[in-house]
Amino acid sequence: MIAEPLKQQLFKLHQNKLFEFLVISIIVFSALVTGAKTYTMESTATDIVIWLDMFITVFFLVEIAIRMAAEPRFFDFFKTGWNIFDFIIVTASLLPIEGNDSVLLARLLRIFRVLRLISVIPELRILISALIKALPRMGYIVLLMFIIFYIYAAIGSFMFEHINPVLWGNISIAMLTLFRVATFEDWTDVMYETMTEFPLSWIFYLSFIFLTAFVFLNMMIGVILDVMQREHDAYYRETGEGEAGEVHWIKEHTHEMEQRLERIEELLLASTKNK
Amino acid sequence: MIAEPLKQQLFKLHQNKLFEFLVISIIVFSALVTGAKTYTMESTATDIVIWLDMFITVFFLVEIAIRMAAEPRFFDFFKTGWNIFDFIIVTASLLPIEGNDSVLLARLLRIFRVLRLISVIPELRILISALIKALPRMGYIVLLMFIIFYIYAAIGSFMFEHINPVLWGNISIAMLTLFRVATFEDWTDVMYETMTEFPLSWIFYLSFIFLTAFVFLNMMIGVILDVMQREHDAYYRETGEGEAGEVHWIKEHTHEMEQRLERIEELLLASTKNK
Amino acid sequence: MIAEPLKQQLFKLHQNKLFEFLVISIIVFSALVTGAKTYTMESTATDIVIWLDMFITVFFLVEIAIRMAAEPRFFDFFKTGWNIFDFIIVTASLLPIEGNDSVLLARLLRIFRVLRLISVIPELRILISALIKALPRMGYIVLLMFIIFYIYAAIGSFMFEHINPVLWGNISIAMLTLFRVATFEDWTDVMYETMTEFPLSWIFYLSFIFLTAFVFLNMMIGVILDVMQREHDAYYRETGEGEAGEVHWIKEHTHEMEQRLERIEELLLASTKNK
Amino acid sequence: MIAEPLKQQLFKLHQNKLFEFLVISIIVFSALVTGAKTYTMESTATDIVIWLDMFITVFFLVEIAIRMAAEPRFFDFFKTGWNIFDFIIVTASLLPIEGNDSVLLARLLRIFRVLRLISVIPELRILISALIKALPRMGYIVLLMFIIFYIYAAIGSFMFEHINPVLWGNISIAMLTLFRVATFEDWTDVMYETMTEFPLSWIFYLSFIFLTAFVFLNMMIGVILDVMQREHDAYYRETGEGEAGEVHWIKEHTHEMEQRLERIEELLLASTKNK
Repeated sequence: MIAEPLKQQLFKLHQNKLFEFLVISIIVFSALVTGAKTYTMESTATDIVIWLDMFITVFFLVEIAIRMAAEPRFFDFFKTGWNIFDFIIVTASLLPIEGNDSVLLARLLRIFRVLRLISVIPELRILISALIKALPRMGYIVLLMFIIFYIYAAIGSFMFEHINPVLWGNISIAMLTLFRVATFEDWTDVMYETMTEFPLSWIFYLSFIFLTAFVFLNMMIGVILDVMQREHDAYYRETGEGEAGEVHWIKEHTHEMEQRLERIEELLLASTKNK
Repeated sequence: MIAEPLKQQLFKLHQNKLFEFLVISIIVFSALVTGAKTYTMESTATDIVIWLDMFITVFFLVEIAIRMAAEPRFFDFFKTGWNIFDFIIVTASLLPIEGNDSVLLARLLRIFRVLRLISVIPELRILISALIKALPRMGYIVLLMFIIFYIYAAIGSFMFEHINPVLWGNISIAMLTLFRVATFEDWTDVMYETMTEFPLSWIFYLSFIFLTAFVFLNMMIGVILDVMQREHDAYYRETGEGEAGEVHWIKEHTHEMEQRLERIEELLLASTKNK
Repeated sequence: MIAEPLKQQLFKLHQNKLFEFLVISIIVFSALVTGAKTYTMESTATDIVIWLDMFITVFFLVEIAIRMAAEPRFFDFFKTGWNIFDFIIVTASLLPIEGNDSVLLARLLRIFRVLRLISVIPELRILISALIKALPRMGYIVLLMFIIFYIYAAIGSFMFEHINPVLWGNISIAMLTLFRVATFEDWTDVMYETMTEFPLSWIFYLSFIFLTAFVFLNMMIGVILDVMQREHDAYYRETGEGEAGEVHWIKEHTHEMEQRLERIEELLLASTKNK
Repeated sequence: MIAEPLKQQLFKLHQNKLFEFLVISIIVFSALVTGAKTYTMESTATDIVIWLDMFITVFFLVEIAIRMAAEPRFFDFFKTGWNIFDFIIVTASLLPIEGNDSVLLARLLRIFRVLRLISVIPELRILISALIKALPRMGYIVLLMFIIFYIYAAIGSFMFEHINPVLWGNISIAMLTLFRVATFEDWTDVMYETMTEFPLSWIFYLSFIFLTAFVFLNMMIGVILDVMQREHDAYYRETGEGEAGEVHWIKEHTHEMEQRLERIEELLLASTKNK
């Protein structure tokens, strides 16, 4: 096949440290261009930014094309999650470039190109993977927190709606108000207002704060324990060193020693019987 | 007995995955109906909601009746805490349905039907059990925190009452003000006000913030340690694996090896004496 | 000695569960009386409170006298820290009862009688001891935090005094302002004010927030590690169980096994030489 | 060499406990003088402060000269980082003393003399070293946090600029506004303002708060794990005691026992063959 040497050259280019550095630089540069667009600029500067934006879009297209071509088979590219992630970001920033009406949407989609920093820098990729792995542990606690918010929001909405419909008008507004209370943002103003009619409504707020703080605390502990366990296990498996590794080594060698001792005892018993 | 096959059929129904899914769906639907009631609706919509509410109430009654009938003996149902929890929630939402005056109370009692999600989903049940087990560790720290609040509230009430009776009028109002200070909610406004007369009153507020933060920190650590210890012990007992499990294995086998070595030494000593 | 049987009876009374419960009840009652004094009352109620206060004072005096008399020697009473703690609280609430001018001081000193709950309930005593033991670890971090506050307060005072002397008038006022910034209490108002003249002053505030948060974080970790180490060590020493206990058991028995093996090898070598 | 005895005397002086105490006192005194300058003073007091300031500057110069002279070779002084730290602080406070125009800069540079407390007190030096070692672990998480801030700031700037240019005028102002939201400082005011035009913009704020809280949480865990690992390893290496030390001891001795057992088995096999 003729394409083979080209494929290898593309793969080499893709693995090249300088090329990697170039890609990171362009991503950072792309982020700066995005940031520059938020400043009010003269028309010449705006023109330059538009040209720069085009150049960045084309560069990302070429880069992703090289990586696709460097794969042994075309569809192998889509087997790793991070490649799909890159592909979506690059094509998304490409799509609305034709329409003139959706300037805002086009701009928003281009912001996400900054996220490519995560897929390019391996340390960030590891970080994100670790965060994603810790998510399931949090799922049920988030559900529990949602139940607490829902019940308090329903109570608040039934009780306090006539006092201040802006804060307690319906259950969704009440949940937003409760989130505000949970972040301690001017929560006493909310409380003092309802205490004029219901003097005991401080119980509502204090019990809510304690419950959410307690559940959030537990969520935090859950994540800490989960990450610790994971790191500990990984260290144990990979290096075989550390305390856990040494204990495992001792266990195996104790097993061997036991078998040897059994053989020795048998030998001795045999020799004494022989006599 | 004729009832036996029915009992088994009810038990099968109760254990059925589809039935479980139906129960969860009805609970979520009940929560949505509760939420809908907080919005202002047309009279036709209100009628529908009332009919839906009745349907949900009847469904929960039938479901709990099935579970009761599925038990070998009627009173076995009340042996597990979660069943009592369900029973109270269902009957509580039933009771005030007759009276027309206590509409608000009836509504409030129906909100708590959302809590049935906890008793239905096993993962949430485990979570709540873990939280309840961690409570006693916190009891004495909450008492300590209450003592701190009480003393500071008494001091604040004696000293600052004439400055601002709304904040420091009596010991219970003062405790609420101090809780506000502990959440950092506009606490400087409270402080600056008293500092006009007592320039050194910042000592009162700063020492209070440090003490409560420190005690709260300790409470957090207590819970973290407690949950960690519990999870660690559970893992050790159940799996017998992990570092702690291996150490235990080594200990037992070291004990066996020692006994074998003693026997070997005796054998050798006996054989040398014989010669 | 005639006094001996009385001493034993007093000791028995002091150890009695019912007497302990009575003391706790009186302390709680004393706290409630203190709290009641913060409410505006009729003159008859005030009279009752004064009589109750006298009764409590006399009761505490009698109780401490019993405990003193129950000691083998009088001065043994002052050997334990908690007894001195009790003695100071009781006598302090006694002293200013004569003067009529210092009503406020007398009231304040009586508030601290609530603290006797700590010395009476053993679990709270243990808690306070643990907190005190964790203090030295925090000493140097508090010093470090003070240095950071001092430097930022000096800079802030030199730079921003002419903008707002109420917040930055001198170094002590500036430190209070910085503490306010550290608790996020309306800190943006403070920042926006100085940013009108020094547009880059956000660096001052953000670097300060990061530094204090980081140092505080480290303090928290320090305390967590300290308490964990202490609990771990205590558990190890007292029970001899757990993973650490088992490892220690294995170590000692491995040592014994080694010596036994040496003896066996010598025996074998001797027997083979003999042949 | 004639200089040698002098050098030794200087070294002795430098190591002297009293001299160390004098240095610490002068640093604290220097801090107090810096603090005093922030108060408005009479002209005589100002004169005294200027003279004190000169004395402190000279003292620090002499002290650093003594430490330089006490080194075996002159340039050995600059081999430890803390000496360079001291040298920069002392010379920096010296430099602008000549110019009369840059009074503020001179004052600011003299504030940093308080930092010499860190280089003088060994416990603080250890603390700072530990903090610096934990920094790299945080680097990538800070980068991740910056990416999140950047994307949200760009979105916020594009969407909300026309609503409130003071808060969302360009990407740098938007990042400051987002930092304010992350500290919960009047964040609902920011949210309510944009919700009048974009009713769903609460998603923007809530997702941002969750993301930053989650990433910050992970950063905290990272630092806790890192410091724990470090302290654990240091303890293990230095003392050889503790659980990890005992496990290591057991591992080595198990290895020796195995070799001894092999020798014993060989001896026995040889003796049985001989017969």
